[in-house]
Amino acid sequence: MAWVDDRNAASLVDLYELTMAQAYWREGMDRPAVFDLLVRRLPPTRNYLVACGLEDALVALERFAFDGPALDYLASRREFSQEFVDWLARLRFTGEVRAVAEGTPVFGNEPLLEVEAPMPEAQLVETLLMNTLHLQTLLASKAARVVEAAAGRPVIDFGIRRAHGADAALKSARAFHVAGVGGTSDTLAGYTYGVPVAGTMAHAYVQAHADEAGAFRAFAALYPDPVLLVDTYDTLAAVARIVELARDEGLRPRAIRLDSGDLGDLAVRARRLLDDGGLHDTAIFASGGLDEEAVAALVAAGAPIDVFCVGTAMIVSADAPALDLAYKLVEYDGRGRTKLSPGKPIWPGRKQVFRFLDGGRAVRDVIGRADEAPGGRPLLAPVMCGGRRLATPALDEARALARREIDRLPARVRALAPADPPYPALPSEALEADRLSLIESRRR
Amino acid sequence: MAWVDDRNAASLVDLYELTMAQAYWREGMDRPAVFDLLVRRLPPTRNYLVACGLEDALVALERFAFDGPALDYLASRREFSQEFVDWLARLRFTGEVRAVAEGTPVFGNEPLLEVEAPMPEAQLVETLLMNTLHLQTLLASKAARVVEAAAGRPVIDFGIRRAHGADAALKSARAFHVAGVGGTSDTLAGYTYGVPVAGTMAHAYVQAHADEAGAFRAFAALYPDPVLLVDTYDTLAAVARIVELARDEGLRPRAIRLDSGDLGDLAVRARRLLDDGGLHDTAIFASGGLDEEAVAALVAAGAPIDVFCVGTAMIVSADAPALDLAYKLVEYDGRGRTKLSPGKPIWPGRKQVFRFLDGGRAVRDVIGRADEAPGGRPLLAPVMCGGRRLATPALDEARALARREIDRLPARVRALAPADPPYPALPSEALEADRLSLIESRRR
Repeated sequence: MAWVDDRNAASLVDLYELTMAQAYWREGMDRPAVFDLLVRRLPPTRNYLVACGLEDALVALERFAFDGPALDYLASRREFSQEFVDWLARLRFTGEVRAVAEGTPVFGNEPLLEVEAPMPEAQLVETLLMNTLHLQTLLASKAARVVEAAAGRPVIDFGIRRAHGADAALKSARAFHVAGVGGTSDTLAGYTYGVPVAGTMAHAYVQAHADEAGAFRAFAALYPDPVLLVDTYDTLAAVARIVELARDEGLRPRAIRLDSGDLGDLAVRARRLLDDGGLHDTAIFASGGLDEEAVAALVAAGAPIDVFCVGTAMIVSADAPALDLAYKLVEYDGRGRTKLSPGKPIWPGRKQVFRFLDGGRAVRDVIGRADEAPGGRPLLAPVMCGGRRLATPALDEARALARREIDRLPARVRALAPADPPYPALPSEALEADRLSLIESRRR
Repeated sequence: MAWVDDRNAASLVDLYELTMAQAYWREGMDRPAVFDLLVRRLPPTRNYLVACGLEDALVALERFAFDGPALDYLASRREFSQEFVDWLARLRFTGEVRAVAEGTPVFGNEPLLEVEAPMPEAQLVETLLMNTLHLQTLLASKAARVVEAAAGRPVIDFGIRRAHGADAALKSARAFHVAGVGGTSDTLAGYTYGVPVAGTMAHAYVQAHADEAGAFRAFAALYPDPVLLVDTYDTLAAVARIVELARDEGLRPRAIRLDSGDLGDLAVRARRLLDDGGLHDTAIFASGGLDEEAVAALVAAGAPIDVFCVGTAMIVSADAPALDLAYKLVEYDGRGRTKLSPGKPIWPGRKQVFRFLDGGRAVRDVIGRADEAPGGRPLLAPVMCGGRRLATPALDEARALARREIDRLPARVRALAPADPPYPALPSEALEADRLSLIESRRR
C-alpha cells in the first residue's frame, strides 16, 4: 500500500505545475510572485469558515523537496529536460508567507494565506498547500456548526471509518479540536496531537455474548465507568436491564448510548427509566446519523442527551464536501495581476484583511491593500520568512482563539441558517480601484 | 506534520475496538468471528457501486501491527493493562478473507468482503478496513458515473487539490483508474500506480506573462503538443489569437482548454474558429465545475468537447460524499448473529453473492448462505488465508474487469437517473429464514 509522507509529499502535485515551472525556469521568470489562497464563495450552508491547517502547511513548505523516485519519474517523461530535473532536485522553498491564525473565522474572497516566492517555487507548492488547507478548513468549518448546535454539550467525533482516507482520518481530529469538538475516537490522533480520545462499545460486543446482560456485566467488570450501547435488540428493554443490574449487582454505568430510532423520544424514556432506577448520574450519549441540524433539533426539543457522538456527516462535511478554494496569482515582478474569467474576480496585489469590532462584536471586514490602514484589526501576519517557519500558536491556543473569535461573530452569522444579511467582507475602494485600472490597462 | 503509513496505520483505530479487544481477551473470547463488510443502502444517486480498495486493504491486514508509540500511549491510559498491551505488541492478523474482485459492481446489503478471524483480531481491523475500502469504493463508484456520462470521450481527473487530504489525493487516482478514468493530474499517482498523468497550463502562467500571445508562444516553444488555457481574459479572443499564431508562426496546439462560461456554447464557437483557421486537429478540453450531470448535458447537446477534465465533484463524490458502509458481526463461534436495531437488518452467517446472467446481461443477484448453490456466478472468493494475501488481479486487470462487468449491467442501472426498478439484489429464502429463526430464538 502506498502512503504519502514528508519524503514524497512534494510529488502530490498537478503535473501542470511542473510543466509551468520548467517553462518559467527556461524563460528566466524567477522574479517574486504573490499568490493568494482564498475561498471565492462560501457554500450556501456556511456563514463563515474556520481557517485551519496552517501549521501543517508550513511544515510542508519547510520540507518541500522532490525525492529520488519523483526525479527519476520526471526524467523518464519526454517533456522534462535532465537540466530541469537536476534543478528540481536542489529546489527548496525559500519564500515568505503571511496568513491568518488557525482558528480565525474567515469569509469569501479573504486570503487565508499569501505566498511570496520566486515564481517557480510559488507555483510548485500550489497543490500541496491547497490540499492541506482545504481539508482542515473544510472540517473545522463544518465542526464549528455542530459545536454551535450542541449549545454547550460535548460533541465527540466518531467518524474516522468513513473519512476520505487515512490522512483525513488523522487530521480531522486536529481540525475538530480547533473547532471545539470535545474528543475523538481516533487513537492515532490521541497520541499524535494530544487530544482527548473516547469510546464506548459496538454492537458486535453485545452480539458476541450469549445475552445482553452478560455483555454489560462483563464490560462493566473490566471498565468501572462503562458507556453501554443499548440498541442492539431493544433500546428501552436494555435500559430496563441496566436498571435491574444496578439494583441487583451494583452496576453504575457512566452512560448509555442510543444509536438508532427516534433519539429524542428514546432519550426522554431512557432518562425516566434511569432516574426511576436511581441512576441519576448515568448520562445519555446519542449517535447514529447525526449532523448539526439533527443535533439542533434535539437540543431545541429539550432531549435529555448529554453528549452528541457525531460521525460521517461531520467528517465528510456532507452538506458541503468541498470549498471553492483557489490559489491565484495577484502580483508578479512587482506588478498586480488579475484575470477576467466570468464570475471569478481577482483583486491584484498584496493584501491585508481588516476586521472591525463594535462593542466587542465583529461587524465587518475590509479586504484591503497591504499598505492601507483603514482601521480594524489586521488578520494576516508573517508566519514564514526565507522558507523558515516563525512561531505559530500551539493547537490548544488555536482552539482557544477559535472559541474567542467565533463568539465575537454576530449571532446571525454563528447560527445554522443562512445569515441575512451575510457578514460584510468587501474589498476596499483602493483595492477595487486597482482591479479596475488593471482591467482598463489590459483593454488599452 | 503527521502522516499515516505502514508503521502506524494499525493505530487508525476507534478506541472502542481496543477496549472491546481487551474485554474479549480477558474473557477468553478468541473463537472465530465472521464479519461482513457491506453497504447497507446505496445513496439515492447510485444504482450500483464499484468495489475498490481490496488490494490496499489486504496489504493493511498483512502488515497490521501496533508500533512503539501506539503501545506506549495505550499503556499510559488507565483502561489498558500492561499484559494486554504486551499481547497487542505481538498481535498480527491471522485470519481468512473472502471478497469480491476489485472493479465488480455491487449492490446494497451485498458483502464486499467477509473476514473470519479470532474475535479480537477481527474486531481490531474494523476501522482500518472500512476506511480503506470506503474511500476507494466511494470514488470508483462516482467516477464510473462520470465515465458513463462522457460516452466514450476521455475523462481526466484534475481534483487532487480539493481531495480530502493526501491519502485521498493519492488513492483517488487508483480508484479512478479502475473505474475507467483516462488519466490524472497527480504526479505521485503516476509513478506510484503507473497510471497516465496529464496536464495543461494554469491561469497564473498566462497572467505572469506580459500578454496572452506571449504566454502561448513561450509554452509552445517548450512543449510541441501544448494544451492552451483560453479563458484567462476572453475565451473566444484567445482562440482567435491562437488561430493567428497558427497562421503566422506555425503554432499547432494539441488542444485548447475551456474553463469557465457556457462551455457548450463556447465549444461550438471555438470549434468553428479553430476549423476556419485550419486547426482541425486541435482538440477541445473542457473543465470548470464539471460533474456527471454537466458532462451528460454537454454530450447530449452535441458539444464538440473531446476531453472532459473533472475535478472537485468527482474527487469528493460531491452528491454522495459517504457510503453507508458497515462491518457487522454475523457469526461467532460457529453460531449466526444478528441485531434488531430498526431499519438495519443483519443476515447471519457466512455468505455468498450469486449473480445471474441472461444473454450476457446481469439480471439479478441473490445474497445467499455460503453453502447454497442456487446457480449464478459466485462473487466472493478467497483472497487471504492465514493472514497471507493470495494473488489478486493487477490494477489494469481490475480496470478491465470493471469495464466488462459494468457493461453487463442493464442500461437502466448504468444510467445516471435512478433505476426503475432498481437492480434486484435480495437475500435467499434460506438466508432470510436463518435471520427470522435467530430472531425467534432470541425472543424465546
